[in-house]
Amino acid sequence: MKVTLKKVAEGAVFDVSNDAGGTVRLAGSPDHGGDGVSLRPMEGVLASLAACSAVDVVHILKRQGEPLRDLTVEVDADRADAVPAVFTRVTLRYVIDGPVNEDKARRAVALGVEKYCSVGKMLEATAKIDWTLTVRP
Amino acid sequence: MKVTLKKVAEGAVFDVSNDAGGTVRLAGSPDHGGDGVSLRPMEGVLASLAACSAVDVVHILKRQGEPLRDLTVEVDADRADAVPAVFTRVTLRYVIDGPVNEDKARRAVALGVEKYCSVGKMLEATAKIDWTLTVRP
Repeated sequence: MKVTLKKVAEGAVFDVSNDAGGTVRLAGSPDHGGDGVSLRPMEGVLASLAACSAVDVVHILKRQGEPLRDLTVEVDADRADAVPAVFTRVTLRYVIDGPVNEDKARRAVALGVEKYCSVGKMLEATAKIDWTLTVRP
Repeated sequence: MKVTLKKVAEGAVFDVSNDAGGTVRLAGSPDHGGDGVSLRPMEGVLASLAACSAVDVVHILKRQGEPLRDLTVEVDADRADAVPAVFTRVTLRYVIDGPVNEDKARRAVALGVEKYCSVGKMLEATAKIDWTLTVRP
């Protein structure tokens, strides 16, 4: 697995690409040369955690023929009061739209977050990860 | 710290945004509903690691008045042969363009990767992280 970071413009704003041509823009905090808009690196980690678990949730429910219409995940996190400031707690709030069986949805999120997600597995070393689920038929 | 993931289009393609309006697109593998282009979640973690350390390198060299002209970081990683497939090794290849003092650059990368970077600190639990530096005056 490989990605390449390139500095763009002044300061600490970076485009990071994979070999397929996908790109994400990440930046430092404004006092470290960031643009005040782009995701910060630690926000990038939260984004990766949310996406990692969401991939599995979508895949599991699709395999079960459950009619997932839409999916949103709000992620918030606390960081250690230290340098480096690792995550100490992360909460994922899943909202699934569609007439999906709630037990199956709950099982899918549990598997996605707790069992299959490689990003979550790495963050567990420092952070307690918990989640909630709302199904809106 | 907070981000929100939204499913976009069919399958497992997601936009993840922060409160400032920055967005990154991440997707599952093609056989899990991905678009075959966007960064995969684990690539997002590598991107965040590269950006995290790069922010500090840019900041340190700027504070020292070193004339950094450009910066590229190639990241490659090995993953465990297991589910979840955590990173076991990550290599960051820094290339700095500009007539920068090489000792200072080396010190900046060492501090960025090994000391200040919160992402790296979290990944250390499962992965050996190493780096190289090339300065092209």
